[in-house]
Amino acid sequence: MNYKSFDGDDLAFLKNLCGDERVTAREAIGEDYCHDELGGAFARPDVRVQVVSVEEISKVMAYASEKGIPVTVRGSGTGLVGGAVPLEGGILLDTSAMTRILELDEENMTLTVEPGVLLMDVAKYVEERGFFYPPDPGEKTATIGGNISTNAGGMRAVKYGVTRDYVRALTVVLPDGTVAELGGKIAKNSSGYSLKDLVVGSEGTLAIVAQATLRLLPLPKAKISLLVPFPDLAAAVGTVPKVIRAASVPTAVEFMERDVILAAEKFQARRFPDSSADAYLLLTFDGASQREVDLAWDEAAKTCLANGALDVFISATPERNESIWSARGAFLEAIKASTTEMDECDVVVPRSHVAEFVLFSREVQKRHGVRIRSFGHAGDGNLHIYVLRDELGEEAWRKRLSAAFEDLYAKARELGGQVSGEHGIGVAKRPYLREALSPEIGALMRGIKAVFDPKNILNPGKVVPCE
Amino acid sequence: MNYKSFDGDDLAFLKNLCGDERVTAREAIGEDYCHDELGGAFARPDVRVQVVSVEEISKVMAYASEKGIPVTVRGSGTGLVGGAVPLEGGILLDTSAMTRILELDEENMTLTVEPGVLLMDVAKYVEERGFFYPPDPGEKTATIGGNISTNAGGMRAVKYGVTRDYVRALTVVLPDGTVAELGGKIAKNSSGYSLKDLVVGSEGTLAIVAQATLRLLPLPKAKISLLVPFPDLAAAVGTVPKVIRAASVPTAVEFMERDVILAAEKFQARRFPDSSADAYLLLTFDGASQREVDLAWDEAAKTCLANGALDVFISATPERNESIWSARGAFLEAIKASTTEMDECDVVVPRSHVAEFVLFSREVQKRHGVRIRSFGHAGDGNLHIYVLRDELGEEAWRKRLSAAFEDLYAKARELGGQVSGEHGIGVAKRPYLREALSPEIGALMRGIKAVFDPKNILNPGKVVPCE
Repeated sequence: MNYKSFDGDDLAFLKNLCGDERVTAREAIGEDYCHDELGGAFARPDVRVQVVSVEEISKVMAYASEKGIPVTVRGSGTGLVGGAVPLEGGILLDTSAMTRILELDEENMTLTVEPGVLLMDVAKYVEERGFFYPPDPGEKTATIGGNISTNAGGMRAVKYGVTRDYVRALTVVLPDGTVAELGGKIAKNSSGYSLKDLVVGSEGTLAIVAQATLRLLPLPKAKISLLVPFPDLAAAVGTVPKVIRAASVPTAVEFMERDVILAAEKFQARRFPDSSADAYLLLTFDGASQREVDLAWDEAAKTCLANGALDVFISATPERNESIWSARGAFLEAIKASTTEMDECDVVVPRSHVAEFVLFSREVQKRHGVRIRSFGHAGDGNLHIYVLRDELGEEAWRKRLSAAFEDLYAKARELGGQVSGEHGIGVAKRPYLREALSPEIGALMRGIKAVFDPKNILNPGKVVPCE
Repeated sequence: MNYKSFDGDDLAFLKNLCGDERVTAREAIGEDYCHDELGGAFARPDVRVQVVSVEEISKVMAYASEKGIPVTVRGSGTGLVGGAVPLEGGILLDTSAMTRILELDEENMTLTVEPGVLLMDVAKYVEERGFFYPPDPGEKTATIGGNISTNAGGMRAVKYGVTRDYVRALTVVLPDGTVAELGGKIAKNSSGYSLKDLVVGSEGTLAIVAQATLRLLPLPKAKISLLVPFPDLAAAVGTVPKVIRAASVPTAVEFMERDVILAAEKFQARRFPDSSADAYLLLTFDGASQREVDLAWDEAAKTCLANGALDVFISATPERNESIWSARGAFLEAIKASTTEMDECDVVVPRSHVAEFVLFSREVQKRHGVRIRSFGHAGDGNLHIYVLRDELGEEAWRKRLSAAFEDLYAKARELGGQVSGEHGIGVAKRPYLREALSPEIGALMRGIKAVFDPKNILNPGKVVPCE
């Protein structure tokens, strides 16, 4: 694709539209805006524009479309697959200043927000008012726009589903600047193709999420966490389907291994409640009453003990709960701190194959001579497998990482899994998505991209598999 | 679009592929296969083919695509918008013989079925084995393929969502005969555009659902229904948001008015538990234990009484439950039996506007001189508004029906609603969808249709708004 070279006239247009202070040109753009949390993908935009309204986004897009300038949207930049890296330069459309909470509709139980509102601010705002926004990805400083663009999942997917399930309506800006409304404050919809569901998870390649109306639930009145040590990983993970089949579905089921817990203890300089066992399940239950939650965890504890659990630690107080979950929250940072560079595979496999996949990742570790650490969502089959560089030289690292990834993604396909459970495809996982999809599905995705964005100006080089 | 005239060679090909007894040619096709449950849309296919496998569907489509013959898929034919009527003739691809339940995967809690399995058979099969398929549309003899194609909703959407939320994977046949797998036995997915969600609700215009893997939940252990009389509709419906905001979300919240109850009593020749009040709410609660359900209904009953309810009737036994819900199930048939012909509008509006919309429908009744009856899902804002012909002559009926529909859909748009909550668009609601959507959204839908089906052979004349 040939794009227009960004020039002084373009800069003048944008400055005139948004004012000098919200438009930063090439050399003045900080390095932070040239990458996300993925190592390796780096590109400098020609201009960074901090937009503040739907109307501004629309005007920027109408201009970019007319001129043929690529546009990449960026929220907090917490992505892990290079989705917000402006590979072709052009405009970096920064939505991080669009942080207004526009409406809490208590009767329809929806919250309407601008895309730059942080996930943690959504959660806090609604919880203070007796409501609950269930999606709970680990990265709380991500924007809600980013969460929608990657269909972020998180810890509570077992019981509550993923971001997609909580997006009632979107105001989107199409690549030509048209503003369109998708969905509504409605609980059912069979009115033509679900474009809303197409935009959710499309990583800013089809349209720009300019406003979102989220579905809320009543805030659960009680919550409890169980930390359950097991003699080994297979025993821990093998118990999960039995726990989930019980009448009370757990909110979250995470698995963790001693290695990762030790790294987190070191990183946080505080002790985990227990680190004597090889493998753990961390279970959470919530409900409308303490009694309901007590019945649920009691049943789950019995199931765990009947399936080889060594003990069951209960965290009924907010403090103890916080201490376990903050360790869980620190896993990623702890692994990161333990090495020089890393890349990650967030495959999702059927729940029944989690143990097999994690054990396979240990084989891969030996086979290719790279250190691999993992933790993840045992309840929903979404694993985070980290390949660590440690002291490897550049060439050895690239080679071994690529070989390890090839093996991991091939195994995921074999087990009926998919490339990404929640982080998306971006630029980093694009070749693996291409391998995972049949050529016909790839062609349909390219066709859809061309329908929305015939000039290929919106986040070019991402997601959609090459021919 | 110019389609090939179906001829003897085409018939010979299909008979050779499927055998004589599963291929019926024009004159021998029963009238039943020329329409669905919508009055007014009628078209005879050139041939009806009862397919029995994914492979057969694929071969029929490859042939139809090569020759340019239109293909319309039909399940049970219980649709209400003419979706399965073969407007352009050609092949009626009948999936009603594909009734095998292929796999219950207990660890991943999924059920894989052929598209012709009836909803009631899915429900029964899984409940006998301790699992639960939550979607519960009123028409239990619909096929699961039809439910997926219309993104059917049903009674339990308040708590459990709609069909879309329970489709984990689809095997689809594309218009050119390609077989493709969408999704998987996985709980999270961020691997490119969600084509699965695009096919769900596309009413057989993009691809043919040839196999489906459904998500199951554990079967709730306890259930209770409350019938709550109110002095009038506004009081009844106004209470709904307050009930739903409580910690325990009800499974279903239906509203009904005395007129409809009296019609159902007459139709069923049996008494409803109470018909002395003007308006009723019917609430259901389910849960993992009797205790949990008791806490939930107690709270809801108090909320209702505090908001003007005249009484609360509890149906704790399966028999009493069945008696109330069978009356609810008979509403549609009872209204139908009370008139000569009818058409229906299944708009969905934000929950907060349900009362306003129903009261507006009474105004429409007076304004245009047609009898209108309604009931519906107060909890999710999906209303079924029936316009009844009674003794009106053909011209008066067409004119008044059209005027009434215009007003109803315009009001729905004004309130932030959509054309169809769960029945779909088919042919009957296509003009109203066109009015409801912006031209750009219409153009995107046409573009997507052309990407999947460039020859426009799959269910032509449906859903997608005309230019």
